[in-house]
Amino acid sequence: MSHGGWRIRRTSADLDRLGETESVFALANGWVGWRGTLDEGQPYGMPGSYLNGFHEQHELSYPEGGYAFPERSDTVISAPNAALVRLWVDGEPLDLRTGTIRRHHRELDLRAGVVRRETEWVSPGGRGVRVVSTRLVSLPRRPVAAVDWTVEPLDGPVPVRICSDLLANERVPERADDPRAASVIHDPLTAETGRHDGTDGVLVHRTEHSGQRVAVAVAHRVAAPDDTATDAELTGDRFRLALTGPLRPGERIRVTKFAAYECADVDGTPADELADLVVAEADAARADGFDALLDAQRAALDAAWATADVELAGDPELEQAVRFAVFHLIQSGRADGDRTIPAKGLTGNGYDGHVLWDTEGYVLPVLTYLAPELTRSALRWRHAHLPEARERAAELRLTGATFPWRTLGGRECSGYWPAGSAGLHVNADVADAVLRYVAATGDTAFLAECGAEVLVETARLWHGYGHWDDAGAFHLTGVTGPDEYSALVDDNIFTNLMARRNLRGAADAVQRCPEVADRLGVDPAEVAGWRAAADAVHVPYDGKRGVHQQSAGFTEQPEWDFAGTGEDDYPLLLHFPYLELYRRQVVKQADLVLAMLRCPGDFTAEEKARNLAYYEARTVRDSSLSASAQAILAAEVGHLDLAYDLLAETAFQDLADLGDKTADGLHLASLAGAWLVVAQGFGGLRDDRGVLSFDPRLPRRITRLVFHLRWHGHRLRVTLTPDTAGYALPDAGPGDAVELWHHGERLRVTGGTPVTRPMPPVPDPGPEPSSPPGRRPARRAQEAAGGD
Amino acid sequence: MSHGGWRIRRTSADLDRLGETESVFALANGWVGWRGTLDEGQPYGMPGSYLNGFHEQHELSYPEGGYAFPERSDTVISAPNAALVRLWVDGEPLDLRTGTIRRHHRELDLRAGVVRRETEWVSPGGRGVRVVSTRLVSLPRRPVAAVDWTVEPLDGPVPVRICSDLLANERVPERADDPRAASVIHDPLTAETGRHDGTDGVLVHRTEHSGQRVAVAVAHRVAAPDDTATDAELTGDRFRLALTGPLRPGERIRVTKFAAYECADVDGTPADELADLVVAEADAARADGFDALLDAQRAALDAAWATADVELAGDPELEQAVRFAVFHLIQSGRADGDRTIPAKGLTGNGYDGHVLWDTEGYVLPVLTYLAPELTRSALRWRHAHLPEARERAAELRLTGATFPWRTLGGRECSGYWPAGSAGLHVNADVADAVLRYVAATGDTAFLAECGAEVLVETARLWHGYGHWDDAGAFHLTGVTGPDEYSALVDDNIFTNLMARRNLRGAADAVQRCPEVADRLGVDPAEVAGWRAAADAVHVPYDGKRGVHQQSAGFTEQPEWDFAGTGEDDYPLLLHFPYLELYRRQVVKQADLVLAMLRCPGDFTAEEKARNLAYYEARTVRDSSLSASAQAILAAEVGHLDLAYDLLAETAFQDLADLGDKTADGLHLASLAGAWLVVAQGFGGLRDDRGVLSFDPRLPRRITRLVFHLRWHGHRLRVTLTPDTAGYALPDAGPGDAVELWHHGERLRVTGGTPVTRPMPPVPDPGPEPSSPPGRRPARRAQEAAGGD
Repeated sequence: MSHGGWRIRRTSADLDRLGETESVFALANGWVGWRGTLDEGQPYGMPGSYLNGFHEQHELSYPEGGYAFPERSDTVISAPNAALVRLWVDGEPLDLRTGTIRRHHRELDLRAGVVRRETEWVSPGGRGVRVVSTRLVSLPRRPVAAVDWTVEPLDGPVPVRICSDLLANERVPERADDPRAASVIHDPLTAETGRHDGTDGVLVHRTEHSGQRVAVAVAHRVAAPDDTATDAELTGDRFRLALTGPLRPGERIRVTKFAAYECADVDGTPADELADLVVAEADAARADGFDALLDAQRAALDAAWATADVELAGDPELEQAVRFAVFHLIQSGRADGDRTIPAKGLTGNGYDGHVLWDTEGYVLPVLTYLAPELTRSALRWRHAHLPEARERAAELRLTGATFPWRTLGGRECSGYWPAGSAGLHVNADVADAVLRYVAATGDTAFLAECGAEVLVETARLWHGYGHWDDAGAFHLTGVTGPDEYSALVDDNIFTNLMARRNLRGAADAVQRCPEVADRLGVDPAEVAGWRAAADAVHVPYDGKRGVHQQSAGFTEQPEWDFAGTGEDDYPLLLHFPYLELYRRQVVKQADLVLAMLRCPGDFTAEEKARNLAYYEARTVRDSSLSASAQAILAAEVGHLDLAYDLLAETAFQDLADLGDKTADGLHLASLAGAWLVVAQGFGGLRDDRGVLSFDPRLPRRITRLVFHLRWHGHRLRVTLTPDTAGYALPDAGPGDAVELWHHGERLRVTGGTPVTRPMPPVPDPGPEPSSPPGRRPARRAQEAAGGD
Repeated sequence: MSHGGWRIRRTSADLDRLGETESVFALANGWVGWRGTLDEGQPYGMPGSYLNGFHEQHELSYPEGGYAFPERSDTVISAPNAALVRLWVDGEPLDLRTGTIRRHHRELDLRAGVVRRETEWVSPGGRGVRVVSTRLVSLPRRPVAAVDWTVEPLDGPVPVRICSDLLANERVPERADDPRAASVIHDPLTAETGRHDGTDGVLVHRTEHSGQRVAVAVAHRVAAPDDTATDAELTGDRFRLALTGPLRPGERIRVTKFAAYECADVDGTPADELADLVVAEADAARADGFDALLDAQRAALDAAWATADVELAGDPELEQAVRFAVFHLIQSGRADGDRTIPAKGLTGNGYDGHVLWDTEGYVLPVLTYLAPELTRSALRWRHAHLPEARERAAELRLTGATFPWRTLGGRECSGYWPAGSAGLHVNADVADAVLRYVAATGDTAFLAECGAEVLVETARLWHGYGHWDDAGAFHLTGVTGPDEYSALVDDNIFTNLMARRNLRGAADAVQRCPEVADRLGVDPAEVAGWRAAADAVHVPYDGKRGVHQQSAGFTEQPEWDFAGTGEDDYPLLLHFPYLELYRRQVVKQADLVLAMLRCPGDFTAEEKARNLAYYEARTVRDSSLSASAQAILAAEVGHLDLAYDLLAETAFQDLADLGDKTADGLHLASLAGAWLVVAQGFGGLRDDRGVLSFDPRLPRRITRLVFHLRWHGHRLRVTLTPDTAGYALPDAGPGDAVELWHHGERLRVTGGTPVTRPMPPVPDPGPEPSSPPGRRPARRAQEAAGGD
């Protein structure tokens, strides 16, 4: 990989790593997602063209079942693939596994929002062609994706055949033997109707079990020599536009394909109507033309980058990685509607395409600052699924509502409950995302319409779930926290502190929204109960070791035998039984450290330093969710080198495929973590008490760091150098102001008056915390070995 | 049900409860097991003819797998069924669902060891017949089972057709939706060979996956009128002898069928050889005749009952239930070979026919006293599977060996590890059974050959698994104890105390068997480590409440909401999630109470009383393993009425089908519990320190209680009345002696000199412990409502 600033480039075909490339080059607009497969469809790692929320259901079966184990799961399935443009050169298919590649270049342009491709290929029979394409999934036009594809001969005349396909039930490879992979359903779609009209076609399919219908239309614009024959063909699962003819030097065939995607409940829009709709949308896109799509794409991204861009002078490679991360976050969401963002966005089918707590825990905190309207949509999705969450709570004999650990359609899909359904903290994560969104935007309409109800029902969960001990402390027992190398623990500190925030947030919200309280039957006694529980939440602490406990008794558990653990034993979950993992002091991912990030006021600076050192030595980061939280706390404590290395690990998770799982889709939470480390780690951004504060401190290598965030409608620019921190509102008028704190000093930034303050020296934090043997952040070492 | 002393009778057809009857009337000899199906095969609850260890394997699949989750499970499958004798009366099949039953009577004769049946039935066409049969599975002749069957006309002449079948791949009903039911494999057997010779036939089949071969031969003796036509027919899955002819008043047809069963590894005995073997065995049985089988059966049972019989004067119904229980225990095992006794014996396919800790925890303790040679065989089976247990420990990254939670072939088959594989106490249960067997028999040869190795490898497990805290205590964390309403707890008191016994027992054993120590590389340092760990085992105690904790922190967990739990909510596991069950103070089955039984010296009398009261109020007995341990401790503490009611619950578990699960097979552990309550509860028998002691105390209703046990080759009779306790060695010479303790007084009982001592008064134990609401022992109430 080379580092071209705004362009992510791959200049080798890398046929062994196709799946990874497909994820990195995935395009999406929060509604449609196209994996970065080759235009010709073959070879592939895992083809995928997804619609947000479009899925199939399948049965779950257990060797030994149990009460309320989910009987069905959702899994993401591909909508018909409209990205395909296949080419035959003198009867031989363009296939990079055959013939000779003279040049192959692909790039994701982060500002243009397109993937460009240029290939010069000589067929086994010796015929050379150049194929150039540009692909986009339109950010402003929800249903639309398009590809602009051109072929020309390289050396002499070639007979070519081009097939621009719309293909349902594309073959997918079998499931890998890894619990984190996706279920595979072959041929999930049943053809309902289809039609074609000249060069245009539309397919409508339905799923068998989930009751959904999908329609995809393609409209073509073709520029070709006059002697090119055009043919179109429709079967149940395929519409094909075929162009056949000789191509002489200087001639070219250009195919521009405009696709439109919609899906609906089977009981909703009828098949023919849905077909009409997508045909109209594809037609309209064609009428405007590809250049118009490109222009609109660029404009949308320019607007987004104004807030989202990050400057990391001194480390262009890292700067590009952070931009790549932010790009994927932005294109995963939508401002309109009530869709959320799955753990892999729309970039792959890992985790069955499920939504996990990654969304509220990592992705939404970033989008709240960069594009709060995307956060609002995602939280509206949670709110829309409150009925299922209430039902699930009732089934589990709990109060209030409990959101699923993993889901697509809203119902719990977790097939291993100790590491899934028991992770009740997902409810507090949702509540936290609501609270942060409202605090950062002041969107009280959302609070009244959706947010307060979510807060109330989750507060009811905690209040009913917990119990009081004889000494008056409030405990939450038998839960699983973020760290999945522990399970069913008592008083997980992250869960407890987040539940406290949830309880207080709910109490505040019903006081702000009395009409919601009335509607939900919340009386003052109930609110008082929430506050009392919040005040009494137990926070486990080991006085002897002077550190908090991740859960009750954690620090008294046996240690992990790191000396006896080999490099090949990671990730541990593939090499050790839960029996061993659960009972030892080994941490998969930041848990207590994450608690210190989310609830910073609950720990003193000294506690943070001691806790970080203790848990850093026991945290193996077998989850990609871990490095960012560790980095932020390391920065806060003053270990800026460690923070910097951990930032690289989270930022390069997918660009360098550090976990060898990028092929399944991008790790959006890890990518979100990259921005969080910049803003919360080096920028020292905190807002957990509703006020905006910064304790910035720059790592050595960075000479200038710039990031932005939106705060109550304003765009705040933060500019950090080794000596100064600057705060400005570049778009605001002189009457607009934002109050914030800089290293404990209260500042008022107004439209016309940027404020600059000195950067205080970083106090000596003492020796750097040691990571477990062999588990120092790995990226920079790997980077030296890999890439092109 | 009526109570005929030694005969268990059912005088109604009870077509709704066929499965239960089939279990109650099951016959076995530790090798062959025939469920008590009707001769005519139809209707049935669940047909089954089992061979000990004969099973098939099937794949286990998990929605979310994990490291070392078992990939395959064993499940018991039926061998070909030789018990079938079908009858057609004037073309209409004898089927109790049709026609008119004039009389129907079946009985299990506990002294004769047979099931007798007499049915008078009038066909829908109005033809009456009497069918009488006697069925046995020969205790002395391992492979042999037989049925003696007669039909005669009731009122007038009838044309009859009789088919005596040997049938493989008999249809079985689908699996019930209950985690405790069996997996169903249809048509598990593949025909290898078969032949027939006159009225005799043999079938040889193999399994597809488990690599086993089974051969069954039948030899017939027929007495019939001269005009009866005889025909025989052989297909791959069936040998049939058909008899057809008119039957006039005063005439009868008698079919006596002698069957022989063998199985072997496919790589072992070839199919033809195995066929020859069973043909010879069936021939030999026929040559001796059915009466000879009956005589030998009676003689074998007379010998067994001399020790096994229990007299409970004052409660003949309970007396019969205890005899029923003991009968099934005795017929489940064999003295020869190295087979064990599954949880359901050979009476059904519940729990997939698996062996669980029920065997060592409940069944073997009884057989050690009544028929120690059966215990020896079962422990030899464990020893034979040490290689798999060592492999499993290595796979789990543990030391030593860990026996499977459930298995047939020796490998772990538990598909829900938190309540299965994590139950490491099974290893201590095996060790405990070894120690008890050696202590009661003095069989040092067994100790050297098998027992010591089992003790060493399990001690190695505990020593490696545990860890030392800063204060020098030894902890076993993250395990699941007997109570399956808790899981993955720290310092389960039963596990800890039993591990201590295991560690010390291993240390003692290697000192007695230095050659075993040499062979296994046990050096003095290792032994010292075991003793040190044993001495330091942590025993969790709640000083504030003055009770021990079932596991660390148990008494601080939230209480169960019994007030909000309805009668229909039991068993709780079918109505509440583990999430709730695991974290609350609700106990499925005796755990700490069982620890007080197995390790009585680790608790003072006052502690036992307080603990019993505390845990009794929280124990719902959703497991049939619970009542007996509670009964014994209740008796020890002095709550004899409670003990008596709990005895009834355990003794009538299957006779009254208290758990509605008897159809899947008998609960051997619960039946074993009945004898244990008699001997350990009312007899006060303890021998955990290698000396035999009795603290007898009779419940009010019992006027005389007699039981026996074998101790170092002697048969000791214990006779209790309200006033006296007598100890005698009825078979011994004057030079033979047994030392024992009676209520703290040391006695020496010799062959010629029975000893009688007064029964001390039972001290007032205070108020009876309360059971959870609605969970008082249920049997006597149900008994009044049910039965015939």
